Amino acid sequence: MTDAKKFPTINDKTALEEGDTFAPSFDAHGLLPAIVTAAETGEVLMFAYMNKEALARTIDTGQAHFWSRSRGKLWRKGETSGNTLRVIEICTDCDQDALWLKAEVAGAGGCCHTGRVSCFYRSVPFGEYAGKRLMMEAT
Amino acid sequence: MTDAKKFPTINDKTALEEGDTFAPSFDAHGLLPAIVTAAETGEVLMFAYMNKEALARTIDTGQAHFWSRSRGKLWRKGETSGNTLRVIEICTDCDQDALWLKAEVAGAGGCCHTGRVSCFYRSVPFGEYAGKRLMMEAT
Repeated sequence: MTDAKKFPTINDKTALEEGDTFAPSFDAHGLLPAIVTAAETGEVLMFAYMNKEALARTIDTGQAHFWSRSRGKLWRKGETSGNTLRVIEICTDCDQDALWLKAEVAGAGGCCHTGRVSCFYRSVPFGEYAGKRLMMEAT
Repeated sequence: MTDAKKFPTINDKTALEEGDTFAPSFDAHGLLPAIVTAAETGEVLMFAYMNKEALARTIDTGQAHFWSRSRGKLWRKGETSGNTLRVIEICTDCDQDALWLKAEVAGAGGCCHTGRVSCFYRSVPFGEYAGKRLMMEAT
């Protein structure tokens, strides 16, 4: 079992960025941002935060767990909806303060609580279209 | 010009999630997390935060801007390295507290300050491999 209390801290920049020790850097609130993409399509499905316990459980079980800031509780994705996330790969970024999870969605395949596959279903106009209304994605 | 002071706030959950008004929800520090993927490959390149000014400039110019928490300043990605990010699409998530940018990297094509294409170049072992050393990605 991964001990959530024992994730190491690395202060040396080179060791943190180039080494092979996993030393996740949690923010002042004890949270680490996590991006989830669909392993098959590469689409960004959702974005959420993990605390140490959520990360430890994700590592141990291969099922994505997060910390719900709004509900103030540990949360196994899909525990009520059935749309669990089976982790295919976890990557850490250069300074180890963000994670990227490639995952497969179980159940009906929707990752967003609105029932859509992805939470990112609206496009923000920019450049010459700046200030226009959001556009609903076709997906 | 997009006025960074005038991003609206929406409190009604349905309007926030299903409407076509862009009402980005900045956190207590005035920041909004932003995921950047390569428009061509779908690979997650980097993760950073925007404040209102960075978001307004990104929307106006189509060039990705962020807020550097470590340096405490607005930052146009690639302003020193030349590896600027030309925005192809900006998507907001269901509750409008995260963004996903699809972008093209200019210059040498590296998005990470280490020179790599992506910041996410190390894989975290999990499941039966939990606790093993980080693995460097082939890319």
